[in-house]
Parts: sequence; structure tokens; C-alpha cells
Amino acid sequence: MAYDGTDFSGFQRQPNQRTVQGVLEKALFKMTKGAAVTVHGSGRTDAGVHALGQVIHFDYPGNIPAENMLKALNSLMPLDTEILNSAIVPETFHAQFNTTGKRYLYKVDRGYYTNPFTRHYAGHYPYPLDLAKIKLALEDVKGTHDFTSFAASGGVIKNKVRTIYDAQVWTVPEQNQIQFEFYGNGFLYNMVRILVATLLEIGNGRRDVHDFLRLYEVKDRQQARGTAPASGLYLKKVYYESENSH
Amino acid sequence: MAYDGTDFSGFQRQPNQRTVQGVLEKALFKMTKGAAVTVHGSGRTDAGVHALGQVIHFDYPGNIPAENMLKALNSLMPLDTEILNSAIVPETFHAQFNTTGKRYLYKVDRGYYTNPFTRHYAGHYPYPLDLAKIKLALEDVKGTHDFTSFAASGGVIKNKVRTIYDAQVWTVPEQNQIQFEFYGNGFLYNMVRILVATLLEIGNGRRDVHDFLRLYEVKDRQQARGTAPASGLYLKKVYYESENSH
Repeated sequence: MAYDGTDFSGFQRQPNQRTVQGVLEKALFKMTKGAAVTVHGSGRTDAGVHALGQVIHFDYPGNIPAENMLKALNSLMPLDTEILNSAIVPETFHAQFNTTGKRYLYKVDRGYYTNPFTRHYAGHYPYPLDLAKIKLALEDVKGTHDFTSFAASGGVIKNKVRTIYDAQVWTVPEQNQIQFEFYGNGFLYNMVRILVATLLEIGNGRRDVHDFLRLYEVKDRQQARGTAPASGLYLKKVYYESENSH
Repeated sequence: MAYDGTDFSGFQRQPNQRTVQGVLEKALFKMTKGAAVTVHGSGRTDAGVHALGQVIHFDYPGNIPAENMLKALNSLMPLDTEILNSAIVPETFHAQFNTTGKRYLYKVDRGYYTNPFTRHYAGHYPYPLDLAKIKLALEDVKGTHDFTSFAASGGVIKNKVRTIYDAQVWTVPEQNQIQFEFYGNGFLYNMVRILVATLLEIGNGRRDVHDFLRLYEVKDRQQARGTAPASGLYLKKVYYESENSH
């Protein structure tokens, strides 16, 4: 599914907050005429973070062809969400626990002022950037590293070693943006946004090009400091065992 | 100036409504420390209609270099607006009365469901379209015609003859959109949105390809019927006498 995260307090259900899980479960509650169906997502996204390819699963108390489920949910869900595809999966499938990887996109506006049309859909960095430096730094991001310096505090996960299979940056001149993409086996809380903030500081010359190597060693969130805004972040694709990477 | 029209009740100042003119005059009120400055726009845009190149003028009670005015206004204006450029103009310049033409862009999403990311930034037409038919019809739109059938009721302007210098349609496959552009010496109230609705009906085969010729004759708004949503419409450029057309 896709969603515009702007008006959601993130993915996860919370009392008195509009969340993606909340609107999904509300739609399913209508479909079942009152049965509580719990939705499981591949992972949470924070308030303001978007999804182009979030994956969810749920146990539906009834038999509905996948195509009809797609139509029914889209007719009941709000317009800032879209169910893109649906399938009946084996009992063993779990949207969160079976993931083998995720791909995130991050958009950065390069205009001097905030762009009125993308203020909710991109971060904003008006300062000079040397893209060659960012590309060098992205080579340090790829591979298996301890990302403790790049995890927001408050996470309960002890093991902070993750593998980044691919990390790219490119320019989109007609939109005056640069965009990042990260594909890895897993990401810690706020990790992509902290990576982007650090990469922008490297591109601006405020950090050494190879500062990532030092940050992996010190394992200290205080030294990475910045967190790029939620508005620029898109969960693009979630991978599962049965798929080849693409 | 540019603005995202989503959260505005149109351009024109209205009591207890958030309007573009209203936020501009509020910013100028702050700059002058309490002098009421009236802002004149090239024309109104309706609630939800966007601008990429709206032009405004005002008489400022003081001497501020144009560049400083640009910076000061952008620092005081909300983030869904952006002043793109500023100049000190002759006393004779009037943003509304001196216009020689306007250019509008209209974006139409072609997805089956509403796209969560463009629901405020495009119209939506999921039905089949024959672009060749639309292109033929656009030939009938170009030129000087009585657009009475394409003007929303309520307008006070008697003369409904306008000249359309150029009218185009093209596809943007990577965004699954078609886009229209209209360049003319003036446009009646809701005219672009009514033109687009009629063109889509022609493309869908629900009207004769040359129905425009009949609609010019009958001078009857009831026969054009549809109005495409405000969300797809962008005031792209306003032309003045001193400029060559571009």
C-alpha cells in the first residue's frame, strides 16, 4: 500500500490519533460488520513519513477473493491511502517477521526557500553540496556495520549491526532535488533520516568525507546529531524471502 | 509568487477565511508595523487552485530595495507560499488591469484510484481517453470564440469573447498523468476547469470531437455541464505589455 504520511501520526495504532493501522482496522471493522481485525505492518513509519510500498497482513474472518478485498478496502479507506495490490498468503506469512530487506527513498529540496508544493514531500537543504563527497561517503555506508551512532535513543533492539546492500544519490534537476535510496536488510529507528543528515553535512564540508568510519567506531548517537525531516522519507519497497531482490 | 492552494479559501480576502491576499496583507501589516497595505493580484484563484507564477502589486509606504522586500516577505509568509521574484515598478503598473495574457496548467491523474500523493495537486480521470480526439478538439479551442458556455454563472463580465493563443495536451507517463496548458488573453470564471471537463468527455467519446463548435453557438453553460476539480489547476504565468510572449 501507499500512503501520504502528512496527516497521519505514523503507522502504529495509538489512542485518539489518526494512524495508518488505525484507519485500516476501522475499514476492516466496517467490512466485517464489527469483528476486530488486527493489522500487521512490515514495520512502523513515523508521523509524516510516506510509503510507496508498505506491506501489511491480517487474518480476515471470511472468504473474499483477493481482488475484491483490494476494491473493498480502497472504497472504505481515506484518499491519502491506496491499496496497490492484494494476495491471499499462507498462514505462515508475517508482514513484519518475514522481511528480508527494505528500500527507502529520501528526497531533498535544493531551493533557497521552502517549496510550497513539496514542503510535506521532501526535506530541504539550501546550502552548498559537493555530490562527489556524498558519493564517496555512500561507499562507506554500504556493507555490514554497527549503526549504533545512527539509531535514535529509545529503541529496544540490542543488536545494531545492519547490512546496507545499496546506497545511492542522484540529482533530479527538473525538480531541483537530490534523492537518496538505501536498500538494506533492516533499519534502526530513525536510521535513514540520521544517515541523510550526516551525508548532507559531509556534502557541505562540515564533516570529513570518511566520518562514517569514525562514527561506526564511537557508537555514539550524540556524534551523528542531525535527523533529516520525516517529510522527505518514503518506504519504497519491502522484500520477503520468496522474492528475488529487485 | 507561487502558492499551494490546498489550504487557502482562494486568493481574494474574505472575513474569517485564510486567503492568499489575506496572508500577504498580514505580512505587510507586520513589516509596516501597522499600516494597512492593499494587495492587488493579477486575478483571483479559487479555493484549492494553485499558482506557479501569480503576480501581485502593492504600494508600500517606505523605501525598501526589491531584493530586501523579497527576503522580508518570504520570512513572514507561511510555508505554502513563496515569493519568487520582486521588482520596483512604475506607478502606472497594475497587476490586474495591465495583464495581456495568462497561462494555465491543468494536471489529470490517470490512475484507477485516487493517488494519495497528488489528490490535492491534480484532477482525476480514470476512464479511457483517446488523446487524438482531445488534440483535434484543442484545435477548436484555439482562436477567438464566445466562451459563454464555458463560464460559471455569477460572473459580472458581459463580454465573453476571449482569444486562446495556444492549447496543448501531453502525457507524463512517469507520473501517470495527462497535462493541459492554455494560453490566452483572458479567462472567464471557472473557464479552464470547464474546458478541461469538456475535453475529457470528448476524449472519452461521450461528446462529438467537434462539440466545441456547437457549444460556442448555443451559449449555454448547462450544455457544457462539468467542471474539473480545482486541485488540478495551476496559474502558471501572467503576461504584461512590456514582455514578449514566452
